[in-house]
Amino acid sequence: MTELKSFLKSDQILTDQASLQNYGKDWTTYFDINPSAIVFPRTTEEVQKLVLWAIETKTALVPSGGRTGLSGGACALNQEVVVSFEKMNRILNFEDLDQTLLCEAGVITEAIQKYAEDKNLYYPIDFAAKGSSQIGGNVATNAGGIKVLRYGLTRNWISGLKIVTGSGEILELNKGLIKNATGYDLRQLFIGSEGTLGFVTEVTVQLARRPQDFEVVLLASENLDEVMKIFTLFRKQIELTAFEMFSRAALEKVLHAQKTPDPFDQSYPFYIVAEVEKTAESSDRLMQILEQGMETGSIQNGNVSQSKTQSSLFWSYRENISESLSAFSPYKNDIAVQVSKVPDFVKDLQTILSSSYPKWEVIWFGHIGDGNLHINILRPKDLSKEDFVKECQKVDQLVFDCVAKFSGSISAEHGVGLTKKKFLSKTKSPAEIEIMKQIKKTFDPHNICNPGKIF
Amino acid sequence: MTELKSFLKSDQILTDQASLQNYGKDWTTYFDINPSAIVFPRTTEEVQKLVLWAIETKTALVPSGGRTGLSGGACALNQEVVVSFEKMNRILNFEDLDQTLLCEAGVITEAIQKYAEDKNLYYPIDFAAKGSSQIGGNVATNAGGIKVLRYGLTRNWISGLKIVTGSGEILELNKGLIKNATGYDLRQLFIGSEGTLGFVTEVTVQLARRPQDFEVVLLASENLDEVMKIFTLFRKQIELTAFEMFSRAALEKVLHAQKTPDPFDQSYPFYIVAEVEKTAESSDRLMQILEQGMETGSIQNGNVSQSKTQSSLFWSYRENISESLSAFSPYKNDIAVQVSKVPDFVKDLQTILSSSYPKWEVIWFGHIGDGNLHINILRPKDLSKEDFVKECQKVDQLVFDCVAKFSGSISAEHGVGLTKKKFLSKTKSPAEIEIMKQIKKTFDPHNICNPGKIF
Repeated sequence: MTELKSFLKSDQILTDQASLQNYGKDWTTYFDINPSAIVFPRTTEEVQKLVLWAIETKTALVPSGGRTGLSGGACALNQEVVVSFEKMNRILNFEDLDQTLLCEAGVITEAIQKYAEDKNLYYPIDFAAKGSSQIGGNVATNAGGIKVLRYGLTRNWISGLKIVTGSGEILELNKGLIKNATGYDLRQLFIGSEGTLGFVTEVTVQLARRPQDFEVVLLASENLDEVMKIFTLFRKQIELTAFEMFSRAALEKVLHAQKTPDPFDQSYPFYIVAEVEKTAESSDRLMQILEQGMETGSIQNGNVSQSKTQSSLFWSYRENISESLSAFSPYKNDIAVQVSKVPDFVKDLQTILSSSYPKWEVIWFGHIGDGNLHINILRPKDLSKEDFVKECQKVDQLVFDCVAKFSGSISAEHGVGLTKKKFLSKTKSPAEIEIMKQIKKTFDPHNICNPGKIF
Repeated sequence: MTELKSFLKSDQILTDQASLQNYGKDWTTYFDINPSAIVFPRTTEEVQKLVLWAIETKTALVPSGGRTGLSGGACALNQEVVVSFEKMNRILNFEDLDQTLLCEAGVITEAIQKYAEDKNLYYPIDFAAKGSSQIGGNVATNAGGIKVLRYGLTRNWISGLKIVTGSGEILELNKGLIKNATGYDLRQLFIGSEGTLGFVTEVTVQLARRPQDFEVVLLASENLDEVMKIFTLFRKQIELTAFEMFSRAALEKVLHAQKTPDPFDQSYPFYIVAEVEKTAESSDRLMQILEQGMETGSIQNGNVSQSKTQSSLFWSYRENISESLSAFSPYKNDIAVQVSKVPDFVKDLQTILSSSYPKWEVIWFGHIGDGNLHINILRPKDLSKEDFVKECQKVDQLVFDCVAKFSGSISAEHGVGLTKKKFLSKTKSPAEIEIMKQIKKTFDPHNICNPGKIF
C-alpha cells in the first residue's frame, strides 16, 4: 500500500467500508463483497504502474466500470484491489471525417451517445444501463442491447483500443483503422474478455450516420411460431432496427406498475415491439406488412405509432419489464439460441420448467430478433429467498442443459463472470476452454487480472 | 505418403509438376513454388487426419483456396503438402429465419452471392476475385472489397466456424449465434489468421436483406482534400454503400483499355464512384448533395447514372483499373490509414516517391471511404523487370516508413503472407507480435499450419 501511495494521490485510494462495498460489486446481489482497496488511476501510465505493482506484490486486480453487470464480473470477493475507471472519463479527440471519437475507458455510454448527437452522428449501442455503464465495461462485455439487429454489438463499433496487459505492456490495438489485415486481431480478443486479459484504458469509438427518426409498431400474436413468421415478414421487406418480444405476463406486470391501460381491447399471449428508421416510404411499407401479417393470421392485432409519445409508450412495455419485476426478486437468466430454434427451445424449456415447478410463474421476453431470451422466474410467495435461490441453482442446470441441447449460449450478453463459470462447458468444448486458458496465460502470466472470472 | 493413401483416395492426391505449380501458388508471381504434394480432403474428419499425419511426420501444411491472394499467403516454397479445399464445396444448409447459410470452406464467394440472391437475400462481400476465391480463404484473410463502407468486412458476416487446429482438435466456434458472451471469441482470432492457426472447414455465413437496387454517381474533383470534403458531404446525408477514388492516370489507362470516351468534356485530377441503395428519396437526395458540392466547388463535375448500363460504365472506370494496368507489370501495394489522414499521407508519399523516382508513373486508387489506398507504380520502359523488382524493394521501405509515420496498416486487405512479413513491425509493436507468436503456439504447437507466413 505504501508503494501505491508513491504514485497515486490520496484522492486516488479509498479503503473505507462504504466505498469497498460500493465499488467492489456490480448489479448482482448475492456475493460477499470483500476488496482491500479501491484505486482510481487517471492515466494509462498509472494503470501500467498499478499492474507492475500488482505483479510485484502478487495482488489481484478487479476492473470496475459502471458496475451495471449482471454476472458478477466486477465483483471483488478476495481482498483484491479494485481499479475504478471513474476518473478516466475524458473524451480526448473527435475526428469528423473518420466519424470516430477517442475517449478514456471510464466515459459513460450515454455521454458517448449525447456527444455523437451533438456532432449530428449516432452511437447505436443502447440498453437500459446506459446512464451508468462505462465504455470500458461495454468493451469488456461486448455489450449488446436493443439495436443489435440493425447495428450489431459493441464489437462492431470499436476501431481501436489502448490496453495494459497483465504483463504491464501498453498495446495500441488496431489504431482506429477500418481495414488492417496484419495478423491476429487482438482487439477482438479483448472485446468480451471481462477484464481477464488486461485493462482497457482508451477506446476509439466508431460513430454512425444519425438516423432521421424511428417508426415503432406494437403487434400482438398467438404463439412463438407466429412471432417468428412475423419476424421473417418484416425482415425480408424492411430494415429493422429492433424486434423485441414479451409475453402477456410481462406486459401485465408493466401495465400494473406504470398504471397504463391495456394497449388492445383484448389480451394476447405474445407482443412485439418492432422499430424501423423513418423514411419517405417507411409508413406505407409498414402498413403493407401489417396487412400481410393480418391476412395470414400471424398478426392478431397491431398499431403503428402516430407520435413520439406513443412510440415511447410502446417501448415502455418492453423496457420497463425488468424494473416492474424487481419487486418479485426474480431469478434471471440471459441465454441465446439461433433465431430459428427459439420456438422449439422455448417449448422444450417451458415443458421442463412446468413439470418441475408447476406453480412457478415464468416471464419470457427478449431480443427475439437476435435469438436472445431473458428468462425471469418470479419467487413464489410461499418460498423464502434462501430456498428460492437454492431451487434456482437447480433450475440453472435445467436451463443450461436445454441450452446445450439446442447448441445455444449460456450467456447471450451479460458475460460469464462468476455466475456462469460453472456452466461454461455447456457452450464451449473442453478443447476451446483449454485454449482460452492458455490465451489468458499469454496476456496475464501472473494471473492478476480479474482472476477467477470466466473460468 | 503411404500413410496418406491409407485415408485418401487416389483422386485426392496429386504430385505431378503441373499440379504442384498450379495449386502451390496464389496470384503473386515472384516466388519459386515447390510443394511436395497436393491433397484434396472431402470432410472435416479428413482434414483432421491430415493434421494428425502432419504432426506425426513433421510435415508442413499450406492451405489452398481460390489462390487469388496477393501476399503469397497460399504459396508453398519448401516441400509442404498443400491442402486444397476444392472438393469441400458443398452448401450444407440454409436457414431462412436466421438468414444463414452453412457451407464447406471451398465454396466460391460468387456461389454464395448467387445462392443468397436465389433466396432473395444478399451476401455483401464483393471484390474482383469473387469468381475464384473461396469462402475459407475469405475468412483466412478477412476479405474486404468495395462494399466495406456499408457492410463491413468478412468478419461481420461469419456467425460460425468449424475449424481444425494445428493440434488436430475440431472446434465449433460460435455455432451460428448472433449473441454469445461466453469468453474470448476464438472465431475472431481465426478470421484473418491466414491459415497459421489451423484450417477452416465449415463456415456459417450470415446473409443480409437484399437491397432494392443501387444508384451510382460519377464525380470529378480537384484534389484529395476536396475528395474528402465530398465524402463527408455524402456520408452525413445518405447511407453510402461504396465510395471509391481514382486518379486521372488510372482513368486514362481504363479508357484506353476498354476504348470508351472520356466521361466528362474535360479532364480532372481525381474521380469518385459513389453508390447508395435506391429508395423513394435517394434520387432527390443525391441531386441535392451534388448541388451542394458543386456550389462549394468540391465537386467539379458529376453525373447520376440513369440506367443499369450507365451504372456499369461508371463502375468499370474503377473496377477495370487493375486489369488495365497489368500490361505494365506494376509494383502493387495495399495500405490503409485513418480516413482523415489520407490527404496528408498521400502528399507525403508523393513527395517521397517523386524525389526518389522522379520519372516513375504512380497510379493511385482505392477504397477511400475506408482509408484504403492501392498504390500502383508502373515499370519504366527503360528498366528491366529484375531491376524494377530490386528498386521496388527499396520503395517498400519508403512506403512502409510513411505508413508507420501515419499509424497506418502495411496491409489493408491483402494480408501479410510472405510479402509483408519483413515489415510487420511497421504496424504492430514488438510486444504485440510476441503475443501473436504465443497465440500461434497455442493453436499450432508443432508449427505445421502454414509456417513462415505472417512472421
